[in-house]
Amino acid sequence: MRIGFIGLGAMGAPMAGNLLRAGHTVRGFDLRAAALEALVAQGGVAASSPSEAAHDAELLLLMVVSGDQAEAVLFGANGAAASLKPDAIVVASCTQPPAQARRLADRLAAQGIASLDAPVSGGVAGARAATLAVMCSGADEVFRCARPVFEATAKHIFHVGTEAGMGSTAKMINQLLCGVHIAAAAEAMHVAERAGVSLQTMHEIISVSAGNSWMWGDRGPRMMQDDPPVTSAVDIFVKDLGIVLDQGKLMRQGLPLSAAAMQMFLAASGLGHGAADDSQVIRAYRAMNGVKPPGGK
Amino acid sequence: MRIGFIGLGAMGAPMAGNLLRAGHTVRGFDLRAAALEALVAQGGVAASSPSEAAHDAELLLLMVVSGDQAEAVLFGANGAAASLKPDAIVVASCTQPPAQARRLADRLAAQGIASLDAPVSGGVAGARAATLAVMCSGADEVFRCARPVFEATAKHIFHVGTEAGMGSTAKMINQLLCGVHIAAAAEAMHVAERAGVSLQTMHEIISVSAGNSWMWGDRGPRMMQDDPPVTSAVDIFVKDLGIVLDQGKLMRQGLPLSAAAMQMFLAASGLGHGAADDSQVIRAYRAMNGVKPPGGK
Repeated sequence: MRIGFIGLGAMGAPMAGNLLRAGHTVRGFDLRAAALEALVAQGGVAASSPSEAAHDAELLLLMVVSGDQAEAVLFGANGAAASLKPDAIVVASCTQPPAQARRLADRLAAQGIASLDAPVSGGVAGARAATLAVMCSGADEVFRCARPVFEATAKHIFHVGTEAGMGSTAKMINQLLCGVHIAAAAEAMHVAERAGVSLQTMHEIISVSAGNSWMWGDRGPRMMQDDPPVTSAVDIFVKDLGIVLDQGKLMRQGLPLSAAAMQMFLAASGLGHGAADDSQVIRAYRAMNGVKPPGGK
Repeated sequence: MRIGFIGLGAMGAPMAGNLLRAGHTVRGFDLRAAALEALVAQGGVAASSPSEAAHDAELLLLMVVSGDQAEAVLFGANGAAASLKPDAIVVASCTQPPAQARRLADRLAAQGIASLDAPVSGGVAGARAATLAVMCSGADEVFRCARPVFEATAKHIFHVGTEAGMGSTAKMINQLLCGVHIAAAAEAMHVAERAGVSLQTMHEIISVSAGNSWMWGDRGPRMMQDDPPVTSAVDIFVKDLGIVLDQGKLMRQGLPLSAAAMQMFLAASGLGHGAADDSQVIRAYRAMNGVKPPGGK
């Protein structure tokens, strides 16, 4: 397929590479010249604007960092929407609130352009290895057309529903669980450290017990470090749990665990740790409850 | 070893069987005659009181349902403590609050009797297959003496610390995570059902994503059922998160996620679902937020 690709960052660059290796043509745009050079080195074509990236594309993939950026590259100055062929498909793979995903799809539909709401998970490692999970919603026939693109970049392809917003809802629900599980791991680790239980032993116990989670395995070891390398920052969960709670507000749904987890990430950020690894939400527990056990237990 | 065994219920009976098969002798007590008959059928000896079960034992294993029951069988009428040999070891494998585990150990120590705080996890299936996890605290030499008993019943043996209460703290931390993860799964499933996303698809997505947890895999499918078989009841988590929050109160520690999860289990119980499967904590979300999506999304 002839693919236009906007957003050649940490996720987008390896995804574009995988599309090229699968035999598609990629005309890409990014604000950073180095990203364009890297695309050309992999066999792609550099575009000088979103409009040029979209020109003649059968499918336009948006791998920008937010829904706001997706709107800007489509409808802003030199935007892609104006130069898209009438039968082109837009695939919005950025992470955005469900309501914003619906608005984007509606705005494209008003111009007669079909789109998919298709956020991904799996991180940079998944983007490189083409093992992403894609959570896609949109009309069946549009999903079928875009399938070769998903197959070149993802290991797990889910068609969540036919309405825009459902793909982003699925992604949001994953983020809800991720955020709550990281904060729960911090709460558990903090109880252990206050009770004088070895965190290493506690980590081994939970790893073979019913309290285990993917996040316990991944973030737990980093909670035992004073200043671990940043894989994903505290403020990312301030954003992602913010999306969850905003959507809950729109839907008039009380989400007590998400709300409690959000307070801990907010507190960690307010303490000055917003750019620290998200495992460091445990610092908010230490600040709140004290570090040293009173009387040893 | 000559083992006294008190509490031959769903967990205790198969554990006693595994001890007999490993070549130990078991003299057991339970209030139910059928439990004693089953022990004898497996090659054990029936005792008519806790005192008789403890007589001449090298190790007395308590697999009763609570710390209160443990105190009663040790120090109540015909209690085991009075008939124990001075060099016998008591292993308390019931689930109890850390503070109660410490009190029990102190009371035994006042009589010169060594003990271990050694709760287990893994459920009835783990008890049958001898694949339990045991979280033990107590003096090194006492732990070494009891090790053959753990090896006959457990797959994972953790020596958490030397002080009584630390084993129960580790078990409590596992229950903290289990309770929060079940409630988080219900919160996530409820958002999906309100947003009109297929719960089956949602379950598949999370199972391969970073939001995954042991509880999501185990309880998630039962959340999609209206009235699933009861593996563990809502009120068990009212009890277990109650232990977590009581201990938090003793330690003067705010535990916001545990507290939020507790409210959902309490609400589910208050709605009349205390005896339902704990996956049905999702009914509290439905009651609170409504079942039908307003306007479809």
